Amino acid sequence: MSKNVAVIGYGVVGSGTVELFMKNRESINKKIGRECDIKYILDIRDFPDSPFADRIVHDFETILNDDEIEVVAEVVGGTTFAYDYTKRLLQKGKSVVTSNKALVAAKGAELLKIAQDNNCSYLFEASVGGGIPIIRPIYKCLAGNQILQISGILNGTTNFILTKMIKDQMSFEDALKLAQQLGYAEADPTADVEGDDACRKICILGSLAYGKHIYPEMIHKSGITRVTLDDVEYAANAGYVIKLIGSVKKLDDGTLSAIVCPRLVPKSNLLASVDDVFNAISVTGDGVGDVLFYGAGAGKLPTASAVVGDIIDCLKHIHKALNISWEDSSLDEKFVVRYKDTNCSMYVRIKADDAQALKPAISEMFGKLMYIERENRPDNELAFITPNMVESDIDANLAILSHSAEIASKIRIF
Amino acid sequence: MSKNVAVIGYGVVGSGTVELFMKNRESINKKIGRECDIKYILDIRDFPDSPFADRIVHDFETILNDDEIEVVAEVVGGTTFAYDYTKRLLQKGKSVVTSNKALVAAKGAELLKIAQDNNCSYLFEASVGGGIPIIRPIYKCLAGNQILQISGILNGTTNFILTKMIKDQMSFEDALKLAQQLGYAEADPTADVEGDDACRKICILGSLAYGKHIYPEMIHKSGITRVTLDDVEYAANAGYVIKLIGSVKKLDDGTLSAIVCPRLVPKSNLLASVDDVFNAISVTGDGVGDVLFYGAGAGKLPTASAVVGDIIDCLKHIHKALNISWEDSSLDEKFVVRYKDTNCSMYVRIKADDAQALKPAISEMFGKLMYIERENRPDNELAFITPNMVESDIDANLAILSHSAEIASKIRIF
Repeated sequence: MSKNVAVIGYGVVGSGTVELFMKNRESINKKIGRECDIKYILDIRDFPDSPFADRIVHDFETILNDDEIEVVAEVVGGTTFAYDYTKRLLQKGKSVVTSNKALVAAKGAELLKIAQDNNCSYLFEASVGGGIPIIRPIYKCLAGNQILQISGILNGTTNFILTKMIKDQMSFEDALKLAQQLGYAEADPTADVEGDDACRKICILGSLAYGKHIYPEMIHKSGITRVTLDDVEYAANAGYVIKLIGSVKKLDDGTLSAIVCPRLVPKSNLLASVDDVFNAISVTGDGVGDVLFYGAGAGKLPTASAVVGDIIDCLKHIHKALNISWEDSSLDEKFVVRYKDTNCSMYVRIKADDAQALKPAISEMFGKLMYIERENRPDNELAFITPNMVESDIDANLAILSHSAEIASKIRIF
Repeated sequence: MSKNVAVIGYGVVGSGTVELFMKNRESINKKIGRECDIKYILDIRDFPDSPFADRIVHDFETILNDDEIEVVAEVVGGTTFAYDYTKRLLQKGKSVVTSNKALVAAKGAELLKIAQDNNCSYLFEASVGGGIPIIRPIYKCLAGNQILQISGILNGTTNFILTKMIKDQMSFEDALKLAQQLGYAEADPTADVEGDDACRKICILGSLAYGKHIYPEMIHKSGITRVTLDDVEYAANAGYVIKLIGSVKKLDDGTLSAIVCPRLVPKSNLLASVDDVFNAISVTGDGVGDVLFYGAGAGKLPTASAVVGDIIDCLKHIHKALNISWEDSSLDEKFVVRYKDTNCSMYVRIKADDAQALKPAISEMFGKLMYIERENRPDNELAFITPNMVESDIDANLAILSHSAEIASKIRIF
């Protein structure tokens, strides 16, 4: 029997990890091929009522300096302690598995290199899509492909809010409140609703697929706080639903286009059917075509499922780096193109005293475009979808239009 | 440079494998960490116009006896030559990857054991779901879970036929003809339409998830040849679509229930939206909940994507078994329960001169059931959905009913 596993952070994911590991320990040990157990749980708190109270420790050094520990699950989050701990563990040749998307997005290339250099592994299946298998599928199963594009609904909180807006006509504010009541959103929901969380995940997926670290600062993001029920209604009438989509794609010249923003998704697209807190990720490869991965993108046991899967993989391959890596990059490198320079088609809603009278001017600006109607449309409102064109050209047109109208909404088409 | 790969069978999947490997060879070699190449393509035919004509060989021994060959893709299919070749290659310590579901379903436990004993790997990601990552996700990413259930649309041909019946009201016969014209169905479509192909795939998934070989003979299967447009219409009116579903699930007493048959799938279930030749597999784990994998379940390049992914994995782990295995079993073992002893709810369509007059008798037999209507229902027809009960009890009731009515259709509810 080796007491060779430690868990750092006994919060939601940490307690789920311990719970799932202990529940399925017999079958897990069979898969690993030897008896393994959790020796330490590091937390600043005590948990006297927990059945694992005797495994709680408060000093990181206990874990770091125990030669029996082979694998550590870092599920404490953040980029301060977690970064320091992870680095030191890897430098000692202990494998680390994590659900910490912020840390992987900020320091992935560096930590993977340290793991590689010290014959251990840094695995992060849980960092994207919760329990949905996505890292290993991209890195292993689809390794024969050039990845052309990855797009996904990567944040359950915003998807829940948008679903409530679309299906129950709740306002953004009410839907957010409900999400908070149900525990889907934090008291400070910024990281979710402003798109930071989805941005980190698309950085991880893009780095993995294209072999070079994409930092969050390289990606344009906008959240869902400005999506209104009016937009939801126009979108529905044109055959779309609004979803927060993270995307990364390879352009013909080898540069990448990456963006996180709300988008009008055609109802025929499978991503349009992904509701509530569920996540889905679509991956397009030159061999496989489109494949889609769907499931619970967060939550205690789903996330723990991915963490425990990584623990098992590490314990099966001790003293051997599991070979995931990508090159580091610097923020001055321009391999992610400016989003304004890429093409898109845009849904636009404007307000003006006599909106209808602006139609000839708008049509002249954009050429062939599509107007959308809604029941009881106010006279001072007009909504349309632009043709596919360079985004900065769309903005230039809207800048001119803003002299005669308020640009109330603009949302990219998927 | 190692010329260390051979491909057996230069048909659809074989030529796709060579095409994809050669196209992406640069990035593939980067992932492997050394220069690799395809040395031989074994086929009984010559391909003088192929750019790879000089790699074609006709004698299996050439591959078997070449020490440079490390990995062989067996994409010839069937269980005769393929079985013999695979066994001998593995015995020599050469890894084999395959898309051959018939062989894995018939001989998987044995071949995996031989691989294990000879420090090489037998991988078969391409055998289920074409290019959809499913084997590794179940085996690795979800390793921390007890798998509660796997259900899927595992055969593209029948899904295409059913989609045409549902969306375009084509008859089964016409839809089959169209599938044959488009190259989705073979001249002899038996293996697809009778459910054999889906059955092999559910055997593989079940063996993998539950650790014991499930042979096709252990599983009850029925195909889609008897599904009519009348059934499609009744199903739609009750909120269902008809899909060919393969399922395996663990019962409370540890035995397995496994079956392949057409089913009425509620429209709200994601599997109901999987149309045309696409496949989708839903996996339920005690940690992760439901995850779904979707994509092209067959075809030249999608299947090649999975084969090449496995080739890369083998070349990264030479002289090391990749550790997939399950116990063998014998046909007398009763760990898969008789389907008649499990519970289900059944859609039933009957014909009788005065069908309406049978309602009281039917209601008395089944208790609470649901009748379904359709426009212009003939007077001699009646359709209903039974409550959830042991299937042999449903059949006993229908046997009594068959004295006064013809049992025209019965299809299980999903």
